[in-house]
Amino acid sequence: MNSLHKPFLNSKKIYVPGKLFPEIRVGMREVSVEDPLYSVVPLYDTSGPYSDVDAKIDVRQGLSRFREKWILDRGDCELLDDISSAYGRARRENTELSHLRFESRHKPLRAKKGKAITQMQYAMKGIITPEMEYVAIRENQRLDELNLGLGNPITPEFVREEVAAGRAIIPANINHPECEPMIIGSSFLVKINSNIGNSAITSSIEEEVEKMVWSVRWGADTVMDLSTGKNIHETREWIIRNSPVPIGTVPIYQALEKVNGKVEALSWELYRDTLIEQAEQGVDYFTIHAGLLLSHIPLTENRMTGIVSRGGSILALWCMKNKQENFLYTHFREICEILAAYDVAVSLGDGLRPGSIADANDAAQFAELDTLGELTKIAWEYGVQVIIEGPGHVPMHKIEENMARQIEKCHGAPFYTLGPLTTDIAPGYDHITSAIGAAQIGWYGTAMLCYVTPKEHLGLPNRDDVREGVVTYKLAAHAADLAKKHFAAPFRDNMLSRARFDFRWNDQFALSLDPEKAISFHDETLPGHQGKKSKFCSMCGPNFCSMRLTQAVREFVSTGTISEF
Amino acid sequence: MNSLHKPFLNSKKIYVPGKLFPEIRVGMREVSVEDPLYSVVPLYDTSGPYSDVDAKIDVRQGLSRFREKWILDRGDCELLDDISSAYGRARRENTELSHLRFESRHKPLRAKKGKAITQMQYAMKGIITPEMEYVAIRENQRLDELNLGLGNPITPEFVREEVAAGRAIIPANINHPECEPMIIGSSFLVKINSNIGNSAITSSIEEEVEKMVWSVRWGADTVMDLSTGKNIHETREWIIRNSPVPIGTVPIYQALEKVNGKVEALSWELYRDTLIEQAEQGVDYFTIHAGLLLSHIPLTENRMTGIVSRGGSILALWCMKNKQENFLYTHFREICEILAAYDVAVSLGDGLRPGSIADANDAAQFAELDTLGELTKIAWEYGVQVIIEGPGHVPMHKIEENMARQIEKCHGAPFYTLGPLTTDIAPGYDHITSAIGAAQIGWYGTAMLCYVTPKEHLGLPNRDDVREGVVTYKLAAHAADLAKKHFAAPFRDNMLSRARFDFRWNDQFALSLDPEKAISFHDETLPGHQGKKSKFCSMCGPNFCSMRLTQAVREFVSTGTISEF
Repeated sequence: MNSLHKPFLNSKKIYVPGKLFPEIRVGMREVSVEDPLYSVVPLYDTSGPYSDVDAKIDVRQGLSRFREKWILDRGDCELLDDISSAYGRARRENTELSHLRFESRHKPLRAKKGKAITQMQYAMKGIITPEMEYVAIRENQRLDELNLGLGNPITPEFVREEVAAGRAIIPANINHPECEPMIIGSSFLVKINSNIGNSAITSSIEEEVEKMVWSVRWGADTVMDLSTGKNIHETREWIIRNSPVPIGTVPIYQALEKVNGKVEALSWELYRDTLIEQAEQGVDYFTIHAGLLLSHIPLTENRMTGIVSRGGSILALWCMKNKQENFLYTHFREICEILAAYDVAVSLGDGLRPGSIADANDAAQFAELDTLGELTKIAWEYGVQVIIEGPGHVPMHKIEENMARQIEKCHGAPFYTLGPLTTDIAPGYDHITSAIGAAQIGWYGTAMLCYVTPKEHLGLPNRDDVREGVVTYKLAAHAADLAKKHFAAPFRDNMLSRARFDFRWNDQFALSLDPEKAISFHDETLPGHQGKKSKFCSMCGPNFCSMRLTQAVREFVSTGTISEF
Repeated sequence: MNSLHKPFLNSKKIYVPGKLFPEIRVGMREVSVEDPLYSVVPLYDTSGPYSDVDAKIDVRQGLSRFREKWILDRGDCELLDDISSAYGRARRENTELSHLRFESRHKPLRAKKGKAITQMQYAMKGIITPEMEYVAIRENQRLDELNLGLGNPITPEFVREEVAAGRAIIPANINHPECEPMIIGSSFLVKINSNIGNSAITSSIEEEVEKMVWSVRWGADTVMDLSTGKNIHETREWIIRNSPVPIGTVPIYQALEKVNGKVEALSWELYRDTLIEQAEQGVDYFTIHAGLLLSHIPLTENRMTGIVSRGGSILALWCMKNKQENFLYTHFREICEILAAYDVAVSLGDGLRPGSIADANDAAQFAELDTLGELTKIAWEYGVQVIIEGPGHVPMHKIEENMARQIEKCHGAPFYTLGPLTTDIAPGYDHITSAIGAAQIGWYGTAMLCYVTPKEHLGLPNRDDVREGVVTYKLAAHAADLAKKHFAAPFRDNMLSRARFDFRWNDQFALSLDPEKAISFHDETLPGHQGKKSKFCSMCGPNFCSMRLTQAVREFVSTGTISEF
């Protein structure tokens, strides 16, 4: 058992069954504590089977395809004889790639002609799917069973309503049956995304799969594979088959690789084949920069930092070179038809997001946002689930306007933001400059936060950076959940604070977002078993521990005497 | 030259003279850049002579006492024949301590009988002191010379008005003439404090002096010496004599050491002697928990985490054991008389700050705040400069109420907050949970942020933790400065972003808060000189660099052609 699969301190995997669908088993992490009020604390768990000591993990086989039955039972999808993408077939038949290939490949599923198979379409028809009950149970973290009086638990019907209204999405490609359903929407826990992916400079398939497993261990709710280097197709297959969380991609990156980086050579046909290739592999959401229009480009001319989105830059260049409107915009209805056939969600990319404080909330950014709102309505016509990507670099006083404007212009579709970074002056610490903005915009209503690592602007993150980025975003999302008063949020804080007050060091560690780091920091100055039983830590020493003093105060208030000190 | 004194990349020390007081020399860091618009970027600099390659540093002599002449020229202070504190004299005469003692000790200064010598008293009389012009120049960072159109520069008269009104303080004990004046107030740049100090468990004098120098190198505006272990008196002397920034202490800690931790043995006489001892050493501000009253204690009984402030716990215990009102409250006017005689500012401690999300903004916290407001008015009667300490652990949605209430109840005295931490669940990452709250409350008007290191709740911070904590708080303070539209704030962001956009890697590094970390992160994947000339980084690789693509877009917009790609 390596560090990727090691269970967390005093934790075990539990599975909570469904009521509407008894076959549902929602995995959670259960922490055992010595608190006199509650002996276990159930926690939302993104790590899938990797944290289950009883699960058999074989990356060459991939994870269990537990959702396949739910999909097939609905009877509205068909198993294709072969994959539909010409490129996908060519890769499969290239014997030079054999050593790279994930072998246990399955035939792809697709909606039967005329069938509406997306979670949004079911929701609009009033159907509660197993996926919907799954996410309701998952969001509640069993706290609905405790009667904490903290607010209303999530019901499957509430999930259905939110998905039907477009205010939430359940990214769940029918070709990613290994994926544990989760929900992205402002009425739910704030989610975080971790980016992985090789580039032309560094990284291998093994490293990327490891980064995915590593990301979900620390709490990534979704993972985007942003590979731009070699063997993108094969890398993605390994990642999806082994991922318990939804996988997102930016298909234009791969399309550009297919034309060797020649932007003007990009075409709708090539892009269309890429969408189908990836949809049949099981990608759960695509970032599509369809909102960047030819007419927006001059708005960026006087910016401090121009266009900083990779996808945005590619498409702007394509528009200029070909003197044509963005082909993702002109073909958007065809894109939606493809996405609907596999239930791939669309994440409408913000190609014109600001890359510096100076460019925040400018005409270019907001012009594109208007177009994203227009595209949202079109996607919904096709039953395609939609999220909207957002900035970027934004100083704190301009963040609220972003959120308010997004809700208004995009008709309540969930917002998915990168940070935002609240200052430009701290490369090396941009996980923090952006966590400040992320917590704030999460509080205002952003549904998912795209993480930023300490390496942002400087280089490709390694494993340590991924962990630092994920945990940082996890805490920012949780701070937002507390502020927006999600009923399931304060319990973990309260249980950890009770442990802290009672000097139950191991409980404090086990309930923290990163028990290993908390333990290693504690042990630097008070190592070993004795330290963990101490009623103090090295920050204050024994005579100055305020917690210990306060316990005496409390005794005095209630009894009039003090037995200690 | 060790790592404590090494100049930052492409930076040199400059000194800006005064206009009202030509002898003033305000040290700044000037970064040379290859930007076509501006060749130098002056930066606010807390590092004092340590970053001046021409300065002679001898820790055994201490720093230059440049402010002594300003003080003596005013003619309202007298040089005492001997130190006034009995304890101080006893320590001096103890030969066993010779090896620990700072030898070049000076005789203390004190206000002449009946003379009003605090910066606030001068300000109220309409007098602009050299200290006031110094901070005005310092805040402006020479950007007033550039006509950036970003807002109004700070004038010495504005400084005087703010200090006179109690909305800002210049902590500047007449016995700390080595200190470079700085200002704490909501109309100025947000400041940060770093805590150092030994405890009974770890650390030595050398380490603590090093931590102070290390703190100011990374940007600490003030440093609090929170020592609770051995030789507190001697440690403090070394720190003050070598500190270019104001030093704060919590005198009750040392008082308690003097009675071997026996809380009930604390007395006004002992505390009074401690105040005088420290005031004559040159401590610039004292945290005094005078607002915690006997009647407040029962309000904490049902808290999740009771009383978590060390000072608060000590005083609550004293009140209970002695069945008397807090002696810091009953003797507050005498305290003010002492502080006024040396121009020591008071930081009214929040002994009842919440130690968990659950306890935020409760009756205990707000009852004490009311008393702090009452004490503020009393201190002002004596011309004592006042700041108010604030929480603690507060979820984001409750932070604004803290700020609004503090301004109202404390009559506009500057707020000085610890974080606040916005969630309890991330020990090991509490510099970040608290930076989120700190940036937010700084934006709302908090004047100084007390840093939190990654070791918070777990142990005593080491040098790396201090750096991480200081830089994190520096970026939070800067994010707040941008949000509150301080005229001097955006220039550094803009210059760094211009460098980033132009691929001037070294300029980007030099303008960042931590050039060494930025360089080391960059060099992990693209080491050496070649990497720094590259028009890309390893995150995206050469064909995907959006900055490079955007430059082509810009060319296309202006010329209709593209020479690259």
